[in-house]
This record gives sequence, structure tokens and C-alpha cells, in this order.
Amino acid sequence: MPLSIPVAVLGATGSVGQRFISLLDGHPWFKVVALAASDRSEGKSYAQACRWVLSDPMPAWAREMTLVPCTPEAVSGARIVFSALPADQAKGLEPEFARAGLAVCSNASSYRREADVPLLLPEVNAEHIQLIRQQRQNRGWSGAILTNPNCTSTGLTVALKALDDNFGLKRAFVVSLQALSGAGYPGVPSLDIIDNVIPNIGGEEEKVEWEPRKMLGKLGANGVDFAEVQFSAHTNRVAVIDGHIVCASVELSSPTSPEAAIRALNLYQAPAAARDLPSAPNPVIVVREEADRPQPRLDRMTGKGMTTVVGRVRPDPLFHLKFVVLSHNTIRGAAGGSIYNAELLVQEGLL
Amino acid sequence: MPLSIPVAVLGATGSVGQRFISLLDGHPWFKVVALAASDRSEGKSYAQACRWVLSDPMPAWAREMTLVPCTPEAVSGARIVFSALPADQAKGLEPEFARAGLAVCSNASSYRREADVPLLLPEVNAEHIQLIRQQRQNRGWSGAILTNPNCTSTGLTVALKALDDNFGLKRAFVVSLQALSGAGYPGVPSLDIIDNVIPNIGGEEEKVEWEPRKMLGKLGANGVDFAEVQFSAHTNRVAVIDGHIVCASVELSSPTSPEAAIRALNLYQAPAAARDLPSAPNPVIVVREEADRPQPRLDRMTGKGMTTVVGRVRPDPLFHLKFVVLSHNTIRGAAGGSIYNAELLVQEGLL
Amino acid sequence: MPLSIPVAVLGATGSVGQRFISLLDGHPWFKVVALAASDRSEGKSYAQACRWVLSDPMPAWAREMTLVPCTPEAVSGARIVFSALPADQAKGLEPEFARAGLAVCSNASSYRREADVPLLLPEVNAEHIQLIRQQRQNRGWSGAILTNPNCTSTGLTVALKALDDNFGLKRAFVVSLQALSGAGYPGVPSLDIIDNVIPNIGGEEEKVEWEPRKMLGKLGANGVDFAEVQFSAHTNRVAVIDGHIVCASVELSSPTSPEAAIRALNLYQAPAAARDLPSAPNPVIVVREEADRPQPRLDRMTGKGMTTVVGRVRPDPLFHLKFVVLSHNTIRGAAGGSIYNAELLVQEGLL
Amino acid sequence: MPLSIPVAVLGATGSVGQRFISLLDGHPWFKVVALAASDRSEGKSYAQACRWVLSDPMPAWAREMTLVPCTPEAVSGARIVFSALPADQAKGLEPEFARAGLAVCSNASSYRREADVPLLLPEVNAEHIQLIRQQRQNRGWSGAILTNPNCTSTGLTVALKALDDNFGLKRAFVVSLQALSGAGYPGVPSLDIIDNVIPNIGGEEEKVEWEPRKMLGKLGANGVDFAEVQFSAHTNRVAVIDGHIVCASVELSSPTSPEAAIRALNLYQAPAAARDLPSAPNPVIVVREEADRPQPRLDRMTGKGMTTVVGRVRPDPLFHLKFVVLSHNTIRGAAGGSIYNAELLVQEGLL
Repeated sequence: MPLSIPVAVLGATGSVGQRFISLLDGHPWFKVVALAASDRSEGKSYAQACRWVLSDPMPAWAREMTLVPCTPEAVSGARIVFSALPADQAKGLEPEFARAGLAVCSNASSYRREADVPLLLPEVNAEHIQLIRQQRQNRGWSGAILTNPNCTSTGLTVALKALDDNFGLKRAFVVSLQALSGAGYPGVPSLDIIDNVIPNIGGEEEKVEWEPRKMLGKLGANGVDFAEVQFSAHTNRVAVIDGHIVCASVELSSPTSPEAAIRALNLYQAPAAARDLPSAPNPVIVVREEADRPQPRLDRMTGKGMTTVVGRVRPDPLFHLKFVVLSHNTIRGAAGGSIYNAELLVQEGLL
Repeated sequence: MPLSIPVAVLGATGSVGQRFISLLDGHPWFKVVALAASDRSEGKSYAQACRWVLSDPMPAWAREMTLVPCTPEAVSGARIVFSALPADQAKGLEPEFARAGLAVCSNASSYRREADVPLLLPEVNAEHIQLIRQQRQNRGWSGAILTNPNCTSTGLTVALKALDDNFGLKRAFVVSLQALSGAGYPGVPSLDIIDNVIPNIGGEEEKVEWEPRKMLGKLGANGVDFAEVQFSAHTNRVAVIDGHIVCASVELSSPTSPEAAIRALNLYQAPAAARDLPSAPNPVIVVREEADRPQPRLDRMTGKGMTTVVGRVRPDPLFHLKFVVLSHNTIRGAAGGSIYNAELLVQEGLL
Repeated sequence: MPLSIPVAVLGATGSVGQRFISLLDGHPWFKVVALAASDRSEGKSYAQACRWVLSDPMPAWAREMTLVPCTPEAVSGARIVFSALPADQAKGLEPEFARAGLAVCSNASSYRREADVPLLLPEVNAEHIQLIRQQRQNRGWSGAILTNPNCTSTGLTVALKALDDNFGLKRAFVVSLQALSGAGYPGVPSLDIIDNVIPNIGGEEEKVEWEPRKMLGKLGANGVDFAEVQFSAHTNRVAVIDGHIVCASVELSSPTSPEAAIRALNLYQAPAAARDLPSAPNPVIVVREEADRPQPRLDRMTGKGMTTVVGRVRPDPLFHLKFVVLSHNTIRGAAGGSIYNAELLVQEGLL
Repeated sequence: MPLSIPVAVLGATGSVGQRFISLLDGHPWFKVVALAASDRSEGKSYAQACRWVLSDPMPAWAREMTLVPCTPEAVSGARIVFSALPADQAKGLEPEFARAGLAVCSNASSYRREADVPLLLPEVNAEHIQLIRQQRQNRGWSGAILTNPNCTSTGLTVALKALDDNFGLKRAFVVSLQALSGAGYPGVPSLDIIDNVIPNIGGEEEKVEWEPRKMLGKLGANGVDFAEVQFSAHTNRVAVIDGHIVCASVELSSPTSPEAAIRALNLYQAPAAARDLPSAPNPVIVVREEADRPQPRLDRMTGKGMTTVVGRVRPDPLFHLKFVVLSHNTIRGAAGGSIYNAELLVQEGLL
């Protein structure tokens, strides 16, 4: 039986905002009642204000919605807000919504590091959602802030979780080749990326070296005990529209063969609570056995863009295993991830 | 005083062959007397047979040269041959030239692993050229085979040499983002690389994990003592015309600061014998201090494409240092490298 | 009620062959019973022999089918064959199938110019399918050959038909910016198209200047009376995966305003016989009114890739109107077009 | 004997400003004494303020120059200013410089349509420079404003001039495929152009339909008598860094063969006054006879980027001839063009 929970999107005109709208089109549980954007767009129709960059067409219901300001009052009626705000705006605005009793499912990095804010990949650490009980107590609000990780941490952490559960993860070297949509719109100028690579993405390496440690940690009485894993990350921008590639080399407590690792990846299942939700990836992980996969253009839409695709699992001469991970950065790694988090929230009775 | 040593190019119509011709145009020591290609092209003029893919125009003297077969007789008059042959053809053909008394400066991988064949980057291991004395004795020929390394090993090894000399290199993780010209012509289909990454290049990782160990080794009485360094490599193809990027994380015997490493890289000089040759990179290494350099399109032509460009030198959380290396794959990493090797051969009186 | 007509695909491993398989997956009328390919692939499973380049995954039923040779015997059981053969092979092979009683829906150019072979866009000239009665008589076979036009002629002719019906078309200047998938796989080398345009596509301009005249012609007692329209075409290859853009300037017998032209384009309907078929474009034409549309990446999948998208309808200083047309070259302009033709054949009781 | 005329660049940090600096490096007549930019950059060194996007390195002398405001006082000492200002700023600022006695060689469109402002391609209409005598009289200033045409008009007009002189030009259909650098920096977002074409460039078609008529006109007593030529233009943006392609179909008063047209193009010479200047293209036009040239990546640097490259000259079914033109849009079509204009000014004693 479809629910009909009213939701709003903050930062609706940007590239992640557009993905929210595209993914919420026909969602069985959520109904979009408000689209909020910056002052400049306020009062315009969504179709007027938004330079749509997705190849799926803008849903008809969104075209005529009038953009409202990013305030709890303006989106009143909504119970959940999906935040595609830039980090600096999210910092100030998201708590206002939580204070007003709304659940904020945020794609911004502003609160990921707070001890009482869950950093969630439901297929990895669904139980961390319980942190919001602490958050409500600490902060005295009835709403909540839930975050999903950086788009590069996302697929990587899913793959690492399957290996950590089975073989114990100790250290990981990771190098990303990231898609352009990760930088938003207008984002990366074409003169910077045609026939080129940009070997740096500001602030990204710190996130990739930190976020998986929180997500792979165990939830204890005093919050999350971070995983004892160490990371080194290099991040690069390449001329790809969607889909982040990560090359990873990992050291394990119980070294294993590529075959056993592939088996573990293939068998990996989300925790029960996160398994049958509308946006749950199915399967969580696909392992490609061809020599040259995964590739962004061919594999990013695996499992409607929610599945993590792994390939080239092989021995590593320095650590134990090498492999490649692909994840759709604006679906699993952004809007789709926030929606999956919201579904978990509803399912756990925490809305 | 310009010399005028007659040379030939084998595999002259391919993309590396074209670079040889472009770089030999106006060379102060070498004069091209023959262009050799496969049977299909034989007898045609170079302009007829060759689909020129470089943005520098085809030199006028090359246009009208008639292509000859890849045999010592056909290029008679030449004292050096530059080989841009595919590895399988190079295997059979290059020894014929050496036996006929010619020096083969080869870009092919076929003989790089032979103990008596120098694998040369003159600015790194010029002294290894002495191996050809052994080679001539062992094989009973008066010519020689000299090889240059794989295009991805090239820039990486130059940068590692400066660090190894100063701080002792123990282990290195390296991930490449390689240009399309490295796959030759027609090479990578456009449908495979527009809006895409190919996370594998056949046979490349083995080369990158092995070749630097020979080049960083010391020449002893019984040949090269390989360097005690261990490598793990991931190799990727990206939508870039020329210029390979390598992301590297290194472990050192004497850990050091980024500043000291930058100083060592900037001060690095080629061995005296390799310093003043026509193709010697000047400087050997440039360290860029901007946050987002080196970039292939902007930096590949540094030092006429012979200089190794390093950037983003910073601490590594697992090993000691992280950095990015850029090297022009068809100039320093292929044709320009073979020509530099030939210059060293002449300079050392070994022709 | 779904039919279940057995069909085969000739040239199943190429890029158009792959589109046939993707579009026939779940087709309500057709069931694929054989996949045929060149000698090299014969006997292998489809998954083994085919380098799949589409982002939709290879259908499961196709993976395990064993490739058979391109002969009527090998595909026996099929009543329709979809031909994605290169023109030179199609020339010899397609008549063998027609002679054996099969309907060949061909994407090849080999028979498009034959007077008794329909060159079909059902939404434009559905009645031309009656030519196969003449064809059967002339050639003494019970099968048939039906062709669809070149991918660049396709969208252009659909748009021109709407204008011709309403305002009379006299002359057209057309310049294409064509996608890479039109050249098949491996097709255009990446070194030829990154940071580049190729201002020629062999044989294409002749097709674009000739094919629309046959399709816009009237079917008379003695075959098709060609339309009295004159064309000048320039064709270019650009770095786009799928979707051909055509810039057109047209001279009309009854000059009209852009507004009236837009109305005519928007109101255009396929002939009744072609209107309700499974692959019929719905709508036939979409007119975008934004200043910078249609764009290949954003608009090529309009109407599941079967709709012709027109934009920038404006006055022309030399002729009467200027506009831009976009059509998906491997769906409407190739495999989807052949399938639509086959549906018309069935519907008209001509199978 | 090298002169040493002091010059300044206005809008020095943008992409055309960068080309000015690159092309003025080592110029035999001009010495850069000031770099001017917007308020935001003022007071910073050029190296600090400028995001350099060219693959030639930033000249050392420019790095340390301090940016000054765009006022005649701030660049005092300069006798010529090269303007790379946006049209809206150029409108207000350029007359101030002319009033202060400086010659403004402008790349902006603001004054191209003024009757007493020369719109110059020295190899086409060098004599039009005499208009500045009228301009000085009319406007009562001792300086001058000289303009060069839009980058798409540039190469097109050079090719058309050779045909017009020999065969009389009546009408032309032109469709452009334009490079990204024409939109400046940051310019076109990468998400808009990877795997895509943008079939519109705001305001460009009007310029291309108007500017050639002024340049092909004759200078009379009362200014320029515009050429009686009519144009229809479509303009498109494609994923190319530098180099605009134009596909043209032309109607002539004296129809001719492709061979005769090729001869006329090859023999075309600049007017005597414009022939031996430092930036004069040599030759003015190159005709490529290969089936698939000119191509931007391979041919844009012909004649140091100042030569117009023509190819595919062939009969046109509607008009008389079809052909393709390539011109480097930021060299011949922008900065190089303004410098060539300044050289003509000096040569004609009009500074």
C-alpha cells in the first residue's frame, strides 16, 4: 500500500536537486509538496528557474510548481526535506528545519562529522540511524538531521564493508577518477576538462580518508566507535558525465584470495532493516568479471544507479587485494542515497 | 658542429613512428635516410601511406620518401634504427638489425627484460648503457639493442629517482590516468572513451611494477642489481590525447617533508654524460606548486615534452609522501626517449 | 493480444545489431529465434562474441544464444530478418533471404535505390510499403526487402514531410553534426575526434541529397514519383555518442511564418496505418521552444528515441525558414526504424 | 630594425587577454607596458590574478606585472591598447582611450557597426583603415578605434574575398561548428558539451550575416559601400578547444569549377600594405585536398594560427560551390587579428 508522506526539496534547481526531483517522480511513499531554492529563483515556476541538465525529462508536476524560499514556514506541510544545499548554506539552514520538527535528509557535508548525526549508507550501517534519538535529546529538537556521505566515499565504503565483514580491513589506498556532475552546475568549465584531467578536487581527499571510518564503525552506547582503518586518497576529475571510478588497494587482517573476495562481495546483503525499501539497491554489489569493467558509461545505471559495481579483483603486490569500484555519483552517491535514508527513517518508525 | 649520422625509422607510419619523424626534423646529429613500414605500405610514398595524426605538420622531406621494408638491407646506409614496431614484430626483427651492425633504439617492450639489454632513461641511469658491451660479447653482434621503458614507467621513474637518491625508496603505490595516443592509431575506439574511463590497459601494470626496479638498480660486474623497491600499479585509460598522469604514494627509508622532497626534485640533475645532449630535458623535473597541476593539456609540452612535471607533493597518511607526475607519453615516453638514448650512445662512443 | 512472430537478426554483434537486440527485448509481436553473425563469431555464444557498447545491459536471453551463419537455412523458423549487415555483405545476402520467403527489414543502403524496394519511414510514407507487391512480381520471390533510410535522412525527412504537406517544399540546405555510433564499432578512432571535428562522412552527402526525394514522393501505378525537391548537404562527425543534429534552411512554395510552421510540425500525424504500431513515435514530432534545443544528450531519448525533435524554427534570410532537427541515429535512424517497418508489414497483412 | 612601441592589454586575464599576452611575447614592434583588468584583479600580480588556460606557458615578463585599472591614466605610456573587454564594458571604456589619444585595437563587437569605425581583416580590406581619418574628424579625438570581426566571420570572409574577387559572390549559406574558447573562460560548462552539441550561440548568427558585408564592401568617399551579398547562418558549439569550422555553400555571379576556385584560393594575396607585416598570414589561405580536412585539432595552427584553411571544395547542387573553412578563433579570429590590425596602423603611419 503506497504511503503518501509529504516532502520538500531544498536547493531544487541545482544538479543534485534535479536528481531528487527525477527520483521522487512516482515514488511509492513520498509526495513532493514544495520545491525551495535561493532568493533569486523564488516565486518563479520550476521550469522557468531551472536549467535542467538530466537526460530524463523534467516531470510534468514539477514544471509548474512555484519555487519557495528555504525556510520551514515556506515548506510547511512537508515532513521530510531533502537537502541539496551547498555546505555553507546547509550549515545555517538545516538546523532550522530540524528545530521545526522536520527530518532533514541531507546531501551536504556540514553535519557529517557531528557525533550525534548519522552518516548513513543503509546497506552498510543501517543501525547508525539510531543516533538520531541521541541527537534529539542533545539538541532538543523533534526533527532530525541525517546525512549521506560524499559521493566518492559511497561506493568505496559499500565494497569495503563486504570485505571488512569477512576479512577485516586494515588499510586502503584509493585513487578516484570522478565525474563532472559531482561538481554541480555550471561546475567544471569545459576548457578545463576536454583533453585533460584535473588531479585535485578541493576538500575531497580529507572526506574520503575520514568518512568510511565513521560508517564502518560500530554503534555503541556513546555513539559510533570509529573503525580502525587507515586511508590514503588521491582524487581526480575526468571527462565523464556521471559515475565515479575508484581504484583501491587494501590490506586485510585475514588475507584472502581474489576468488573468496569476489564471493564475499557477491553474497553481501544489506542489514535486514534496509533490505526491502523502495530505493534499496538490488543487488547491493555486482562484481563484473570482464578484464575492463566497470566502466562509467556502461555500468553506472546498474540497479537503477543504486548498485555498487566492482571489478578487476586481483592480488596486490604490496597489500592484499586490488580492485575497481564504480558508483553513480548523483544517484547512489547523492539524491538516491538521501532518499534511501529517508525510507529507512520511515521504516524504523523514527519520522 | 652538427654531425650527420644516417638513421632509419621502423614502423614509420604509426603514431609513435610519426613522432620519431617529427622529432628528427632538424635534429642536429641525425639525418633520416630511410623510412620502413609493413608490407602493405612498402613502395608507397610516406605521404600516401601515412594517416598523420599530429598537429605539427608532416615534414616536407618525409612526404616524398618511399617506404621500404623492415630489413637491414632496405635501410642500408643507416647506422641507427629507431624502432616503433609492435612488440611481436620487434621480437623477430630487431636482432636482425643488431646482427647487421646497426644500433637499434627501440620503443618496443620485447627486449626490456633481457639482462644484457639496457633499459634506459639517460637522466636516470645513463651508465646502464655500458651493458651493450656485454650484449655484444654475449650475442656476437656488432650492433646493439637499447630500449626505453613503457610510457607510464618513464615519468614515474624520473621522479622516483630523485627521491630514491635522497631519501631511499622502499614501496610505491601508483595509479595512472593514461592518454589515448599511448594505444597507437587507430587504437581506442571513440565509443569506448567519450563520457567514459577504461579501468585497465592490458599488460601495463606488470610493466610499471617491474621496469622501474631495473632502471633504479645499480650496474655491477654481472649486470644490473635490481633496486629493492616494491610497486603496486593500477592503470586506466582516459579521454586525453597526450600526456600520462600518475598518482603516486611512496614509502621512504628516510622519511622527509614535502618541502624537502620538492627541493630534491627541483635540484635533480641528469648524470653528467646525459646532461648536454640535444634531447636532454631541461630541466629534468619541474615541480608545480599550484593546487591543481600538473594537467595534461596545460603541462605536457614542458621542456619540449621531455621534462617530467611533478605536483601536489604532500604527506601521505599510510606511507610518507603523495604526489602527481605528468610525462608526455609519445615524446619523453616513446620517440623522444629513444632519440635521447641514441644521443647517449653516440656521446659515449658506443655507436 | 501479443503476437509471437519469430524473427532473426543478421549482423547481431555490431552496434546496430546490439540496438536491434535491445529494442526487441520484450517486443509485443516479435520473438528473436536466431542471431546471425560473421564467420569469425559463428558457434560462439552471443555474450562471448559481442563487445556490447550500449548502456542498457545485454538481455539475458541473448547472452546464451549461439551465433549462427548469415544464411536462410541457419535462421530457419524466422519469418522476418532484421539486417544490420554492412552494405557490401547485404548486397549479396539479403536477396537469398527474400528468395527463401523471408521478409528482410534492412538497415543497409544496398537496395534503397531500387525502384521496387520501399524506402520507408512509416510516419511519412507508409503507403510505399505496397511496392513490395511489385517487388514480389518482378523478382519472383515470396519474401521481401524493405529498407529504412540513412540515419541522417531520417529525422530530416520526418520534419520536412510536415512542412511539405502544409507549405510545399522546394529546396533545402542541410548540414549535419553526426554522432559516433553512426559509424559502428570500432568506428571512429578516439584520436580522430577528441578536441576535433571530421568535416566529411564518406558517401553520406549523396544519400542525404537523394533519399528524402524518394520518401517524399507519391506512390503511383509505376512506382514512386520522386518529389521535386532539391537538396544540398554537408555532413560532419562530432564527439557525440548518439543523436544526429541537422541544421536546415528551406525554401517553400507557400512561404509561412515560424509560428505556422511550428503549429504544422506539432500537429503532424503519421498516416493511419502507421499510427498505433508498437514502435510508432508518440508524438511523431516534438518542437522545443527554448533557444538552445534540441541537444543530443538531453533530447535524443524523446519518445523512447523514436520521436523527431525540432527546434529553433526561425526566418531564413535567403530561403524561408531555418531550423534544427535531432533524431536518435541508432534507434529511429536504424534498428528502431527497421522494427517499425516490420510492424507496418505485419499490420498491412503483407508478411 | 625592431621598433619598440609601448602597448597595453585591456581585459588581460580572460582567455583572449591571455592570447594577446602570448602573441605579444617577443613581438618585434610592440612592447607591453601595462596589463589592465577589472577592479577585482587590480593591484595583484598577473600570475596571481589570472587562471592561465593556454598550453604555452605564461611569459615570465607578464607574471610579475601588477594589474592596473582599465583607464587611460593607468596605462599611460602606452600608445596602443589591445582590448579584450566584454562588449558591454568596451562600449563605455574604449572611447575614453581614443579621446586620450590612444589607438584602441578592439576585439569587442561594440563599435563594429559604426560607419566611421573600420572592421578590419588586413588581408581582405586593408584600405578600410583609412576610415579612421573620418573617425578622428567626426569624433574630435586623436586616438582611434579599430575593430576586428567576430571569430566566425573571420576565416569565412577571408575565403569569400578570394572567391568574390574572381567570381563575384551573391549568396552564402554558412553553418558553423565553433570551439569552446570562443565563449571565454569559464564559458561553456562541461556538463553542457561532453557528448553533446549546443545548436545556438547567442547573437552570433546576426554577426555572421552582417559583418562580411561590411568587410567585402568598397571604401568610398562616404565610407564603406556594403557588398551586395546575402547570408544565412546557423551557429553551433561543439566539444573542440580551439578552431572554428564553417561549412559554406555559395552562389556566384560567374559560376566556376572547384578546380578554378581552388586555384583562386591558393593564389589569393593580401593587399600590398598588409603583406609583409609581422603577423601577416603566410600564406593567407591554404587549400587542403584530402577528403576529410581541414580538422580543428590538426590544422588550426597552420601559419602560426593566422592562415585560413579551406577544404572540400566541390560543386553545390543548389548554389555553385560547397566548401569547409577553418580558422583559429582566438589567434586569427581574436588576439592575432587585433595585433595584425595594429601593425597595419603603424605601417600606414596612422598611429
